[in-house]
Amino acid sequence: MNTEVCARFGIEFPLFAFSHCRDVVAAVTNAGGFGVLGAVAYTPDRLEEELRWIDDHVGGRPYGVDVLVPGRIDKAAEGGGGLDTLLAAVPDEHWSFLVGLFARYDVPLPDFEKAKRSNARGGAQVTREGATELIDVSLAHPIGLIASALGTPPPLMVDKAKAAGIPVAALVGTSEHARRQVAAGVDLVVAQGGEAGGHTGEISTMVLVPEVVDTVAPVPVLAAGGIATGRQMAAALALGASGVWCGSVWLTTEEAETSPPVKEKLLAATSRDTIRSRSRTGKPARQLRSAWTQEWEGPDSPGALGMPLQMIVAEGAMRQITKVAESGNPGARALANYFVGQCVGLMNTVKPARQVVYDMVADFAEAVDRLNRVTGEEPAGRP
Amino acid sequence: MNTEVCARFGIEFPLFAFSHCRDVVAAVTNAGGFGVLGAVAYTPDRLEEELRWIDDHVGGRPYGVDVLVPGRIDKAAEGGGGLDTLLAAVPDEHWSFLVGLFARYDVPLPDFEKAKRSNARGGAQVTREGATELIDVSLAHPIGLIASALGTPPPLMVDKAKAAGIPVAALVGTSEHARRQVAAGVDLVVAQGGEAGGHTGEISTMVLVPEVVDTVAPVPVLAAGGIATGRQMAAALALGASGVWCGSVWLTTEEAETSPPVKEKLLAATSRDTIRSRSRTGKPARQLRSAWTQEWEGPDSPGALGMPLQMIVAEGAMRQITKVAESGNPGARALANYFVGQCVGLMNTVKPARQVVYDMVADFAEAVDRLNRVTGEEPAGRP
Repeated sequence: MNTEVCARFGIEFPLFAFSHCRDVVAAVTNAGGFGVLGAVAYTPDRLEEELRWIDDHVGGRPYGVDVLVPGRIDKAAEGGGGLDTLLAAVPDEHWSFLVGLFARYDVPLPDFEKAKRSNARGGAQVTREGATELIDVSLAHPIGLIASALGTPPPLMVDKAKAAGIPVAALVGTSEHARRQVAAGVDLVVAQGGEAGGHTGEISTMVLVPEVVDTVAPVPVLAAGGIATGRQMAAALALGASGVWCGSVWLTTEEAETSPPVKEKLLAATSRDTIRSRSRTGKPARQLRSAWTQEWEGPDSPGALGMPLQMIVAEGAMRQITKVAESGNPGARALANYFVGQCVGLMNTVKPARQVVYDMVADFAEAVDRLNRVTGEEPAGRP
Repeated sequence: MNTEVCARFGIEFPLFAFSHCRDVVAAVTNAGGFGVLGAVAYTPDRLEEELRWIDDHVGGRPYGVDVLVPGRIDKAAEGGGGLDTLLAAVPDEHWSFLVGLFARYDVPLPDFEKAKRSNARGGAQVTREGATELIDVSLAHPIGLIASALGTPPPLMVDKAKAAGIPVAALVGTSEHARRQVAAGVDLVVAQGGEAGGHTGEISTMVLVPEVVDTVAPVPVLAAGGIATGRQMAAALALGASGVWCGSVWLTTEEAETSPPVKEKLLAATSRDTIRSRSRTGKPARQLRSAWTQEWEGPDSPGALGMPLQMIVAEGAMRQITKVAESGNPGARALANYFVGQCVGLMNTVKPARQVVYDMVADFAEAVDRLNRVTGEEPAGRP
């Protein structure tokens, strides 16, 4: 396709794929799109390993990395006091709630003290210091984009990327954020509507995209939130976006490392089965509605903590829940969930990621043809 | 434009305009769109007067009527016991809360007993019996469409409309609702995303429209929710819709009877300034965030009642608030609000309704051209 973003990023289709799974990233990049590896809560060593693998599998084609750099995080996590400080900042009642929850759903507890420390290590990556290490690892690879999933990228990130000649992208949920991001040096704005999976605001893609496009022009804007088909990609471009950024749609691909019971839930879910909840990360994030989200909103819940403390409480628990769900435990299956947007209702078959790209491109062309029929204008060279 | 909906409804542009203001309805119809008069809470006599005026001003061009027929309403309102039964069903604490609210914001109370009865008369229209009278009045005019704003149209409405040869439309917020509506005999489905003003669900337009299109094909679908520009109209058609249904965008037109202080608020508001609240009708309805919506969510609030009881409490109060706001009372200006979608952020200038139609059509054509440039296909007959 003939867009500025395609020319600038050296891709065939202005379709950016956010995934935590390196196989998806490579498959989309190899199919003519642009894969972006979500490196949230990775250790620097793990990220290094993943990027080396991607380098080996994309033959020089462009891909990117997304690092979560939170703008505002829990005070306890800012001190730089390490794992013990982080762990000490989690109130006892949150651990007790978890223990009670596991008991009520008949899910065996993991080795609790070990799990706590492992979670805290993950949580520690979601601090400014943690993110900085991940940025350094990323920029040492031939990446074509570095993205900040949450909040304005810190000057350090922008400076390091500019020095390396790498464009910086950032996700925004309002046009005010978009203005701030561009002022901070962002080269590509991802306008993400409230229907998106993961951390998200409340303004819908249909409204947000034209607002952000007008606000930051001529900086290119990718539309995100609810997009899983070529029709929606065409809609996004009609709204003025230069391309799309999709996350959810890859979760049910063949390559995705999505746990089987979660994949089943995703394939069965309708667009009504998601909820914005703070129960996994401490910030509102859209995810499958499950017993987990219900219990955190229930009368016994101590309420979600801030980021990254809630991640320390929740992510180790969810890892255990997912593992146990895989063995068929009904309580764990009821609790299991994952971050996903409202487009989960459109994700009903398992396909290779490459096929998702090709299907979106074909569906896009069909949507453009339909629009041309409406205006009574047949594209040149067609009967 | 060349769509099935244009052919079927005898219009030039598949742009349906929902408005409580007859001048907007006539202006849109005369500009080549399709005006739909929202007849919620009208008395039969008032509706008769409005429709006669429209007949006199559209020269036979097509227009429609929207009647609110609630699917589930407060038990007290179902009894058919009239105004006294309705009034008796409103708890005293709700009236006391209103009295306290007016005092705190220094807004003079209306003649309270008179206002209560007048409100109850309005509320009584929002029962099945009330709606039936409005349907009869509507079908006696040369209307081209009758719509049900909320819930499945009752068999009575469908039967009467079919007998009169008038297509029936219904608003839906989920594909399950859409399936039910079509089974009930609806000819045109309005898929309304959660970003819409007024009664609305939670699934966004970007996700809902393709879902509903696939669910009810070949029944035509109009996209609604967040749409105020031609770019968004093009996006809606790319998603598979046969046209669009817009409500909010007319509120800031020259013709709209929107109260000046409310119009000012609408022009100044951003897409972040709306909220889904039960405080005006008893069902979740998107509206401007104001001191009114905040107070009903505050610690002193008795909580919203069901429909139509909450309308009886709220609508008379809002009429008084709006009237007093027009005289400059600061408390009343803080409380005043109106139903509007997130596209309020795109409504920044006052224009004639006719001009809104023309601007949307021009903007639509530009968006289609942009899409053609992306696919590298120039429409035939262009340089």
